[in-house]
Amino acid sequence: MEKVRTEISELGEFKLIERLVEDIVLINDSSILGSGDDAAIINANGKTQVVTTDILVEGIHFDLTYTPLKHLGYKAVAVNLSDVYAMNAHPKQILISLAVSNRFSVEALDELYEGVKLACKKYQVDLIGGDTTASQKGLIINVVAIGEQDEEKIVRRSGAREGDYLCVSGDVGGAYIGLQLLEREKRIFLENPHAGIDLSGHEYVVGRQLKPKPRRDIIDFFAQNDIIPTSMIDISDGLSSEILHLCKQSQLGCQLEEAEVPIAEDTKLQAINFHMDPITCALSGGEDYELLFTISEKDIQRTKQNLNISIIGRMMDENTGIRLHTKGDNYHDIISLGWDGLKDSE
Amino acid sequence: MEKVRTEISELGEFKLIERLVEDIVLINDSSILGSGDDAAIINANGKTQVVTTDILVEGIHFDLTYTPLKHLGYKAVAVNLSDVYAMNAHPKQILISLAVSNRFSVEALDELYEGVKLACKKYQVDLIGGDTTASQKGLIINVVAIGEQDEEKIVRRSGAREGDYLCVSGDVGGAYIGLQLLEREKRIFLENPHAGIDLSGHEYVVGRQLKPKPRRDIIDFFAQNDIIPTSMIDISDGLSSEILHLCKQSQLGCQLEEAEVPIAEDTKLQAINFHMDPITCALSGGEDYELLFTISEKDIQRTKQNLNISIIGRMMDENTGIRLHTKGDNYHDIISLGWDGLKDSE
Repeated sequence: MEKVRTEISELGEFKLIERLVEDIVLINDSSILGSGDDAAIINANGKTQVVTTDILVEGIHFDLTYTPLKHLGYKAVAVNLSDVYAMNAHPKQILISLAVSNRFSVEALDELYEGVKLACKKYQVDLIGGDTTASQKGLIINVVAIGEQDEEKIVRRSGAREGDYLCVSGDVGGAYIGLQLLEREKRIFLENPHAGIDLSGHEYVVGRQLKPKPRRDIIDFFAQNDIIPTSMIDISDGLSSEILHLCKQSQLGCQLEEAEVPIAEDTKLQAINFHMDPITCALSGGEDYELLFTISEKDIQRTKQNLNISIIGRMMDENTGIRLHTKGDNYHDIISLGWDGLKDSE
Repeated sequence: MEKVRTEISELGEFKLIERLVEDIVLINDSSILGSGDDAAIINANGKTQVVTTDILVEGIHFDLTYTPLKHLGYKAVAVNLSDVYAMNAHPKQILISLAVSNRFSVEALDELYEGVKLACKKYQVDLIGGDTTASQKGLIINVVAIGEQDEEKIVRRSGAREGDYLCVSGDVGGAYIGLQLLEREKRIFLENPHAGIDLSGHEYVVGRQLKPKPRRDIIDFFAQNDIIPTSMIDISDGLSSEILHLCKQSQLGCQLEEAEVPIAEDTKLQAINFHMDPITCALSGGEDYELLFTISEKDIQRTKQNLNISIIGRMMDENTGIRLHTKGDNYHDIISLGWDGLKDSE
């Protein structure tokens, strides 16, 4: 009998994880929620904790040609805090594991840690531990973030209801355009090392890629205004991919209004320079680390007062499907074209 | 001015971590203890949690030539649980991050997860989350383990007092000898792929390397007998290295009795076959995942009743130094010859 070999890229990240954890039954009382959301939930003596972890691999998730180590350290922390905020929780602690090849000096790690500590200071989290070891190739960073919130205020991906408003913070698509610019400048540099790198005028989109801002301000706004979103996720793999997650886990359909999707002017301009449709960048580009959430009718007026929040659609019955209502009044099914760390695997 | 470049291998793991975290001040009330012990400590509404993380890199920490993936999954969990037990705490949850190259199939990851789940079942912990992504080369596994204990029962490395008895569970040196055997069989196999691998008669030491047993039984024994060690650490890098950690963090010296160090018969025999001194294997070989701890005078009689615990020395004044009292009645300073994941870096 021939042994079956299924390539990981055939499944992709989400189906692979589903397969690996499908038979897991939680046995400890303190384990409230396992895999499948932005973070796991633990009951710690009545107080509820959320825990999340992310592994970043050189050559897959970051390119040190154009990512300063300080920015990388900052971003590695920021993306994990974003997962904690996506549970409507407050991050308190992080742990960092590093595997580094001998290409890196102690001073290089000092730089990386400068960024880590800067993010810790800014978001008031404590670096409480980790592990540091050698790697055969490149740099690998694993970050764990632990946050707190009252159990009734924790927001999962699965709580949206029909009729809820779909909202997003900030603007989307910028981090993707920033990445395209950095990749272009890298190609120019590799072809001609004497050519200068010119990113002037593109500070906004490059900043979106290199220094994401996890949306603590949105969580604080919810708290100050007694708003609890019905579901929430952070945008790491692209708007369309995250909308599909919310719909799937809430067992709903959705109508997304193209006209309402917030895209920064710089993003639009640069997308057009790249001969791309800005809405495609917004839907499929990842790493914006904005929050995507649903708000019930009763909270929508108060939510509208925050100018950093856009209402981009409505949650519908599952049978309606998950669709984009275009500016030209057409309807398209939303499919996931977002970034998949495993499908992109070489 | 020339830019300074310090090689990571000049510092080694412990000094590097010390340098990276030296200026960290914990700011959140819930952060009780940061880097520097087997696990960090978090206060969660009165209940105390410990959190630990370990990153394992193919080619550095494991060799898939002779490590079945199922064993690897089991061991990756086991070594983290060992860190939780070393705090005298009970592990409850784990999270796993994987980075895998396309060399690995879905079926290979199924096998790895079989081992993970087996360890979870055996030690009653829940796998609550993680991350899975691509790597450019090889397999990287990061495990986070979270455990619980009443704050007054948590045991740190720093609590030993002069006159306390130094104790170790089980026996030491076996995992190192197991590794030597596996490496030898690998060399034979690589020179002549038709030569069979012969590990018969060596099941004990090979098992010590491939399937470590974190000592939950010792923690349970402490609980049943109202014993709280004054300090504790698990043996991952070798007995001498761990003794130095306890002494340094408790600001004490120590006298270790060579005659009392428990070494299994199989370990001794095989060490001699390799022309090695068994005590050297015990002192410098890592990965035994036994517990090394100190017990105060008042608890020592009850501790002696456990036949899986050996009293191997006494804690002394710092000025006495940290020394081995040999069977031949000589004294040697104990220096760390244990495994350092960064000093071994290529």
